[in-house]
Amino acid sequence: MAKVPTFSEQQIDYFMQEALNEAKLAGSEGEVPIGAVIVFENQIIARAHNHRERDQLATAHAELIAIERANQALKSWRLEDTALFVTLEPCIMCAGAIINARVPAVYYGAQDAKGGGTQSLYQLLEDERLNHRVAVQAGVRAEESTKILQQFFADIRAKRKQN
Amino acid sequence: MAKVPTFSEQQIDYFMQEALNEAKLAGSEGEVPIGAVIVFENQIIARAHNHRERDQLATAHAELIAIERANQALKSWRLEDTALFVTLEPCIMCAGAIINARVPAVYYGAQDAKGGGTQSLYQLLEDERLNHRVAVQAGVRAEESTKILQQFFADIRAKRKQN
Repeated sequence: MAKVPTFSEQQIDYFMQEALNEAKLAGSEGEVPIGAVIVFENQIIARAHNHRERDQLATAHAELIAIERANQALKSWRLEDTALFVTLEPCIMCAGAIINARVPAVYYGAQDAKGGGTQSLYQLLEDERLNHRVAVQAGVRAEESTKILQQFFADIRAKRKQN
Repeated sequence: MAKVPTFSEQQIDYFMQEALNEAKLAGSEGEVPIGAVIVFENQIIARAHNHRERDQLATAHAELIAIERANQALKSWRLEDTALFVTLEPCIMCAGAIINARVPAVYYGAQDAKGGGTQSLYQLLEDERLNHRVAVQAGVRAEESTKILQQFFADIRAKRKQN
């Protein structure tokens, strides 16, 4: 059975800050600002941010890329003893990837009322019929995550008005 | 609104045969035999089979790889007017990727009672709360798909007994 890593409040804050930094990177590239990091033995082994538009890949969400990078870092499709930090509630695809990769713990920021697969629309990470369950902590630095997203969309609207 | 492509019975049979061929390729490489193709304007634009073990990637399911290849072929994350053919019911992750890529039609073979996200555990492709719905046809050449999977696992058990 995979261990669920435990962290101090300070560590949780630090790792989410790194995910927020990834989200800001995405925003600076014109992508919806969502970022993620994966932690193993208290070290960040994968960082990623959304780049669906740049790559024109429907799968290029922060969590999915971070999972693939962590698979490469650990040379294993099983991400036992890891934790994923992501600024927005994972969508259905990313929740499924978290399950498929056996990630034992997920920390996320803002809720995604329209597409969230972890809490809002589905609680996929807690489904007892599946062969893997995930410890989830929601609402970690959610205000900052929301603010970055709101600012991004406000900037887009402002630019549209100028044109 | 994306068009849902329509096919004759013969075309459906042909495209699923191509997906079954991909599944057999996976099996010959020691991977769980699942295959997929994506069709656009009556042509196969992407083929893929499961290679989770070879790549040690939790995300390397046939459907997800096929979606990424189709994104590259069409130079777009939106797979409008396409259809995906896959030998096994998509899992949660792949159902989410199908939604994220706006694939309008999915044909699949065997049901996946333990992990299926399209019919068995969830009906994710028909969720009216999401911004995309998918026309699904289940049970296409399901017996052949099941037989390939059963033979694969029977071979593994036989090899284990020899050792």
